[in-house]
Amino acid sequence: MNQPLDDAALDQLFREARTYNGYHDKPVTVEQLHAIWDLMKMGPTSANMLPARMVWCHSQEAKQRLADCAGEGNKDKIVKAPAAVVIGMDQNFHEYLPELFPHTDAKSWFDEDPEGRVEGAMRNSSLQGAYFILAARAIGLDTGPMSGFDNTAADNAFFGDQPNVKSNFISTLGYGDPSTIFDRSPRPDFDKFNTII
Amino acid sequence: MNQPLDDAALDQLFREARTYNGYHDKPVTVEQLHAIWDLMKMGPTSANMLPARMVWCHSQEAKQRLADCAGEGNKDKIVKAPAAVVIGMDQNFHEYLPELFPHTDAKSWFDEDPEGRVEGAMRNSSLQGAYFILAARAIGLDTGPMSGFDNTAADNAFFGDQPNVKSNFISTLGYGDPSTIFDRSPRPDFDKFNTII
Repeated sequence: MNQPLDDAALDQLFREARTYNGYHDKPVTVEQLHAIWDLMKMGPTSANMLPARMVWCHSQEAKQRLADCAGEGNKDKIVKAPAAVVIGMDQNFHEYLPELFPHTDAKSWFDEDPEGRVEGAMRNSSLQGAYFILAARAIGLDTGPMSGFDNTAADNAFFGDQPNVKSNFISTLGYGDPSTIFDRSPRPDFDKFNTII
Repeated sequence: MNQPLDDAALDQLFREARTYNGYHDKPVTVEQLHAIWDLMKMGPTSANMLPARMVWCHSQEAKQRLADCAGEGNKDKIVKAPAAVVIGMDQNFHEYLPELFPHTDAKSWFDEDPEGRVEGAMRNSSLQGAYFILAARAIGLDTGPMSGFDNTAADNAFFGDQPNVKSNFISTLGYGDPSTIFDRSPRPDFDKFNTII
């Protein structure tokens, strides 16, 4: 049985971690992007469907392309960040299930269920988006996840050749600059949104 | 700037962690449920909307009530687990935004946008579901997340008095018994579902 992680790890993952608006001038490497994937891919998804499709914007041109899809308040954050990412979701993820979930015919559960695929892609790529955030923190990076962008524009800009893939959310990535954050928004006590029965 | 967590922590959170079908006969305490919430609530959600509504099934009666909503293969896992949880999502989360995101009028973004609320609740309660999984692992517990249940039955059984709250997914919780898991499903290399531009 596992023991609780130490306080420093819990602080780094959850308690002291923040959503950053700006980053130190220190690059994010390709090796770090691979390290994030190698952790986040281990997180559970329903039937191991792994619907997330990650487009890492590492070049200035790619960050600019993403910024062009973002809301006014977010453009500058993206072009100035060391890296950014589009978390896409493949609504035809079921095509991969014979490979990803080989011990049963899970593809057949979804073949005739396009609505179930849309819902499964959304739920499970969001789980993977959270795994991305925590995996980045676990390797010492910080993130700035955002929903403030034009999904249709991002779909066209990044998944134009894959109409089955839609953008879910986006994030910046780097070593967070504490001078770019505000006070943390309130986090409610257990009793507000939890019930034990 | 943070350093990467040590290998033992990365193993516990991602690499060695598994979805369990059964658990050791060791209780999950109310204090642990609070500890999970106190970590998971720190994870980011869009505009700090925190739409997840957690119903922790700690009593045998509550686990049975959840099992009655579950698919055949999942009922036994639920009644035998030390605890289970329903991760619900409040599609009227915007009512809380004046309190949770006090520095701007975020409630008005959603007042006339019921579709945006449904989507925001799904995306962000799924993020919180992933934070739940990783927070549980971080305090030394294991989980068994599942989508195999009747959402309408669960909505009626657990949120019958709150038509604005819908079930997202469910999970068991405890100290995982390694004899109850199978080989891990394949996890693809970076190049399969990632692009760097």
